Amino acid sequence: MTKTNAFAAILAGGSGTRMGNMEKPKQFLMLGEKPILIHTVEKFCISNCFDAVVVLCPETWLRQTQDLLKKHCPAFADKVVVTAGGVTRNDTVMNAIEYFEQNCEVDAESIIVTHDAVRPFVSQRIIEENIVAARAHGACDTVIPATDTIVESRNAETISAIPDRRNLYQGQTPQSFNLNKLKELMESLTEEEKGILTDACKIFVLRGQDVALVRGDSSNMKITYPQDMRLAQALLGE
Amino acid sequence: MTKTNAFAAILAGGSGTRMGNMEKPKQFLMLGEKPILIHTVEKFCISNCFDAVVVLCPETWLRQTQDLLKKHCPAFADKVVVTAGGVTRNDTVMNAIEYFEQNCEVDAESIIVTHDAVRPFVSQRIIEENIVAARAHGACDTVIPATDTIVESRNAETISAIPDRRNLYQGQTPQSFNLNKLKELMESLTEEEKGILTDACKIFVLRGQDVALVRGDSSNMKITYPQDMRLAQALLGE
Repeated sequence: MTKTNAFAAILAGGSGTRMGNMEKPKQFLMLGEKPILIHTVEKFCISNCFDAVVVLCPETWLRQTQDLLKKHCPAFADKVVVTAGGVTRNDTVMNAIEYFEQNCEVDAESIIVTHDAVRPFVSQRIIEENIVAARAHGACDTVIPATDTIVESRNAETISAIPDRRNLYQGQTPQSFNLNKLKELMESLTEEEKGILTDACKIFVLRGQDVALVRGDSSNMKITYPQDMRLAQALLGE
Repeated sequence: MTKTNAFAAILAGGSGTRMGNMEKPKQFLMLGEKPILIHTVEKFCISNCFDAVVVLCPETWLRQTQDLLKKHCPAFADKVVVTAGGVTRNDTVMNAIEYFEQNCEVDAESIIVTHDAVRPFVSQRIIEENIVAARAHGACDTVIPATDTIVESRNAETISAIPDRRNLYQGQTPQSFNLNKLKELMESLTEEEKGILTDACKIFVLRGQDVALVRGDSSNMKITYPQDMRLAQALLGE
């Protein structure tokens, strides 16, 4: 198979306390005949854009995740690896980088595409445009124009500003990066910055680096709340 | 009936060109056994918070809107009036103010509650808290914490900022105001400002006036896209 020098990291939850109390993280809920996570993984395996696909899940879910992959997508078993996420999202991304560095041929041109496991409707167009934009600009974010009016309040009681909606976008994923550059910037974070910069694109922006916009899709929704499952089921039927 | 000195304006579309090409504006689509607009109007009629409820709709839909109200909520026929909206949202709000001034007992303490016709799941709590907040602060906006990461781009190509999500909210409606104050501020707009300030709360913010936040609800959704109808139908069944 031709090498693509692009690597996919599916973020399916860290091993941190945030997950500790949940009976079953959202990505393992069934959507149609398969868990949400499996829908997502399939999109990345089908694409032929990646040399490797890593799923980062809570440490306590490693075995179940591996079993689910074997059961639902045995054809992709050689392409997908399951490994443990970190305590924070940043740690999880760093775990992915480490995995690719230790197990794949990573160089100065390598691209890492990071994606939320709970966005199962990502399209091939979005994935491909991410790789192109990350190669061209060093970093990119998938966004759609903001549909709601966004209101800013610094005191949680009164409005401090209503920014012009025409300049606002809702962030989705994938977020994609030159792998070395992402690693370098993440390693440059102070402890204080690490607590604040939970979004990898924001690290690039704050360090003055370009982050290109890739056009997302309203169907590339994040499954967060119970009502999201109903919309997801409706989208699945289309 | 006790006077409440509060007036509700249901914004169901202006008479402008934006509506001109649509076969049927969203607010007239059926949701369960009734058009969306009727669900919304009922919430305001049931509440007993209002001396009058006005529905502002496209001029070409006046007759149909009146017929729908007679058919679906004859009990409220004496409380609800249908009148034409303006070309812009601001014009439509001004039409509502004029109607209340000419037909109701409006004074310095009067409150106007403006609401999108396509948000049929507004709750009684939200309506009541709007009136309380508008009386206390002169203006209020209904918001929920932003769930998506919001990205700002001034050139539509690269990210210029990713504001801290903890300070961001998604605007819903109602938006409620001291009626006289709203009128005064809207009349103070220059022609240029009118083109930009399509959100009444933003007029208050830009004129340095307090706008209090009222806690909305994710179920107080706006029906804008076809997929929203499916979610609305699911919410209706709850």
